[in-house]
Amino acid sequence: MADQNNDHLVQSDDPDHPANLIPRLCKQFYTLGWVTGTGGGTSIRKDEHVFIAPSGVQKELMQPENIFVLDFPTPKYPPSARKYIRKPLNLKPSACTPLFLATFERGAGCCIHTHSQWAVLVTLLTEKMHGKDACFEISTIEQIKGVPKGPGKGMHDFFDTLRIPIIENTAFEEDLTEHLEKAIEQYPDTYAVLVRRHGIYVWGDTPAKAKTLCESLDYLFQLAVEMHKLGLAWT
Amino acid sequence: MADQNNDHLVQSDDPDHPANLIPRLCKQFYTLGWVTGTGGGTSIRKDEHVFIAPSGVQKELMQPENIFVLDFPTPKYPPSARKYIRKPLNLKPSACTPLFLATFERGAGCCIHTHSQWAVLVTLLTEKMHGKDACFEISTIEQIKGVPKGPGKGMHDFFDTLRIPIIENTAFEEDLTEHLEKAIEQYPDTYAVLVRRHGIYVWGDTPAKAKTLCESLDYLFQLAVEMHKLGLAWT
Amino acid sequence: MADQNNDHLVQSDDPDHPANLIPRLCKQFYTLGWVTGTGGGTSIRKDEHVFIAPSGVQKELMQPENIFVLDFPTPKYPPSARKYIRKPLNLKPSACTPLFLATFERGAGCCIHTHSQWAVLVTLLTEKMHGKDACFEISTIEQIKGVPKGPGKGMHDFFDTLRIPIIENTAFEEDLTEHLEKAIEQYPDTYAVLVRRHGIYVWGDTPAKAKTLCESLDYLFQLAVEMHKLGLAWT
Amino acid sequence: MADQNNDHLVQSDDPDHPANLIPRLCKQFYTLGWVTGTGGGTSIRKDEHVFIAPSGVQKELMQPENIFVLDFPTPKYPPSARKYIRKPLNLKPSACTPLFLATFERGAGCCIHTHSQWAVLVTLLTEKMHGKDACFEISTIEQIKGVPKGPGKGMHDFFDTLRIPIIENTAFEEDLTEHLEKAIEQYPDTYAVLVRRHGIYVWGDTPAKAKTLCESLDYLFQLAVEMHKLGLAWT
Repeated sequence: MADQNNDHLVQSDDPDHPANLIPRLCKQFYTLGWVTGTGGGTSIRKDEHVFIAPSGVQKELMQPENIFVLDFPTPKYPPSARKYIRKPLNLKPSACTPLFLATFERGAGCCIHTHSQWAVLVTLLTEKMHGKDACFEISTIEQIKGVPKGPGKGMHDFFDTLRIPIIENTAFEEDLTEHLEKAIEQYPDTYAVLVRRHGIYVWGDTPAKAKTLCESLDYLFQLAVEMHKLGLAWT
Repeated sequence: MADQNNDHLVQSDDPDHPANLIPRLCKQFYTLGWVTGTGGGTSIRKDEHVFIAPSGVQKELMQPENIFVLDFPTPKYPPSARKYIRKPLNLKPSACTPLFLATFERGAGCCIHTHSQWAVLVTLLTEKMHGKDACFEISTIEQIKGVPKGPGKGMHDFFDTLRIPIIENTAFEEDLTEHLEKAIEQYPDTYAVLVRRHGIYVWGDTPAKAKTLCESLDYLFQLAVEMHKLGLAWT
Repeated sequence: MADQNNDHLVQSDDPDHPANLIPRLCKQFYTLGWVTGTGGGTSIRKDEHVFIAPSGVQKELMQPENIFVLDFPTPKYPPSARKYIRKPLNLKPSACTPLFLATFERGAGCCIHTHSQWAVLVTLLTEKMHGKDACFEISTIEQIKGVPKGPGKGMHDFFDTLRIPIIENTAFEEDLTEHLEKAIEQYPDTYAVLVRRHGIYVWGDTPAKAKTLCESLDYLFQLAVEMHKLGLAWT
Repeated sequence: MADQNNDHLVQSDDPDHPANLIPRLCKQFYTLGWVTGTGGGTSIRKDEHVFIAPSGVQKELMQPENIFVLDFPTPKYPPSARKYIRKPLNLKPSACTPLFLATFERGAGCCIHTHSQWAVLVTLLTEKMHGKDACFEISTIEQIKGVPKGPGKGMHDFFDTLRIPIIENTAFEEDLTEHLEKAIEQYPDTYAVLVRRHGIYVWGDTPAKAKTLCESLDYLFQLAVEMHKLGLAWT
């Protein structure tokens, strides 16, 4: 019997293989409250393959065999060349897929999408204070040093102001792609885009960089909400 | 020796058998703070049997042998046909049983009852803002898409307004049944009913659907409480 | 070699033996944030022995061999008959011991002391709102039904008002004993006494009853603090 | 093959050996939210060696082989005598190293650095209420008794006022050393120094003392923030 569905692509003894790492990360993100109720998603690019968590699966129970694999020859390759080379039976691909691919085209190796309540709340507070076109801004908090300044530019300094663009949410997740690409054009150094009333997309060169950046940003969002409650300014 | 108490009904090697799944879910709900101090409950219908967590057992320590089994020939069958076919020694059946059965009569496969503090707080805030007859309302938050619009109607859209009815609490849990049934008549599309100063009942076709819906709603309640603290409107 | 230190008293294969149960409960209480920084304590009476967690040990790392054992012939026996029959080397007995014994004299089988922040905050809010002599009061919250009305009196009804006495803190923990005994005299039905700026003592006939009561009360304290932040009255 | 990198220094079967204990503590601190996004750090001095968690490693995944070892003949020995005798390949030493060493020179056996949000928030609230030169002050809270009064002076009494100095943050972590040393000179009894907009350094004679002190202080900072929200004074 041939491995017609390319199951070998998600079978590995290496705990850091994307098919093993995505379930482990999803379980951890569930504990952090980022992917409640099957919300959010995670994707990793490795060589010419993209591995994606499916839609609608309880994140803390995800298994390697639930993972979709997409052929992704090289960044900037015509999108028509991308096709699923492994689809788990009875599962639907994530609606976040086009957004993940948009970050991989820009060189990312991993992209994480969460519904973190702190992320949602800072999008609402920013709108309330500065209007729809404002980005989230915070400065002189040590944890900013966990956020890169831009590709090849090192990390933020303590005295820098961190800016994360905010895009408006759309009825369908895939329609966010255009907004996300526009935000990246406007903020070419950003590794994250907030989505109003929805959550955040965070990416990085490696899974470790994307995941630790996601943690640092969530720390800053939670701190910002608490600071707002206590009458303390963000910048 | 005959299995006079039908113990075989709660003995299975399948981790997703209701007698194994209910303890696993209860343990998880304990960690989420939903079933503190033996509060709350969980029930699963499988074929013609209903499995119910007992009253008064520490949820994080529940075992398959603690589970009650009720004969439940088919929905809409005369209630008199329902009787316990397995009762654990020294345990009392859950006072939530009539409420669970009311949802099973309407086709549910799993019903979850929590004492979530976020659920209690939104019932109090809704009363304070809009009076006793108001339901909980929230709109344009992405997580709403994790809540079904009604049987066979798909999920809520981002721009929909989610409405969850609120019923008044009663001195005895079983007396809630009538209120719950009335709320379902009034909101025939709902899969959840809030109980003022008490908690919430959430159900679904399957345990996974009931559990992930319960998570999405709890996320929305927590967000709503935080939004209220920050002066942000729910709709 | 004789077992001169009565080590056999804390060696048992029964996971529910006090010498095994106290470490398990302490680990769970640590996770709940009740016994941070070696604060708080737990004691269980079994037959004529009282088992007590030591002072100064990290609660999540406690081991059966760390447990003190006190001879406690029967309640109401002259206190002079009580003496340690097992003392772990290099450990100090808990300063809570006289308070635990005071509850055992009144028939308790288990007493738990936590430094829960919610408990501390309700003692401060009660003082601010109603003065030093007021007790904590809350009513018409379902979780009240998890609190017994008094020995042999069943649980609180939903429409009852729950009252927990509050005593003033003292410089030395053992000096609290007199205040605790006075509070029990004044509130003979109570199974718990709050200590201002300090925490709470909770007891019950069995470890399970004391632990689930402690959970229900902590739930109510947390809810009360959140209600206060949201401008919602407790009664 | 000689053990040219002194790997034997981080290989031990003793679970409490610094090379095993540091990863275990870091994992626990991650769960407590103290070292999110690779922030914070931990160091233990044992005899004439100092063991230090590296920079940039996910704290919950740290392994003994990730640990740096520094020669530290005796406190007060000329700093020039200190050199790394084990460096993990591909890892950078922690920027906190000079601060850890400053506490070891004063006799500490373990130093912990966290980015706790509660610590950050009390530095901001103290500045807002009392200006840049004020220290954090709190009194008459039982948990204060978990904080030592100074070397050889026992623990704080309930009626004492606890004071923790606050230093201003600097662009580079190593530049904090001078501020930390000055704060210790000014508050010779302190075992902790808060860093504005950054976090806290906490130390003790042993890892257990430093860790439980860190817990007690974090408890007090969290309580202080909640008290401030509720309009309750700290002293």
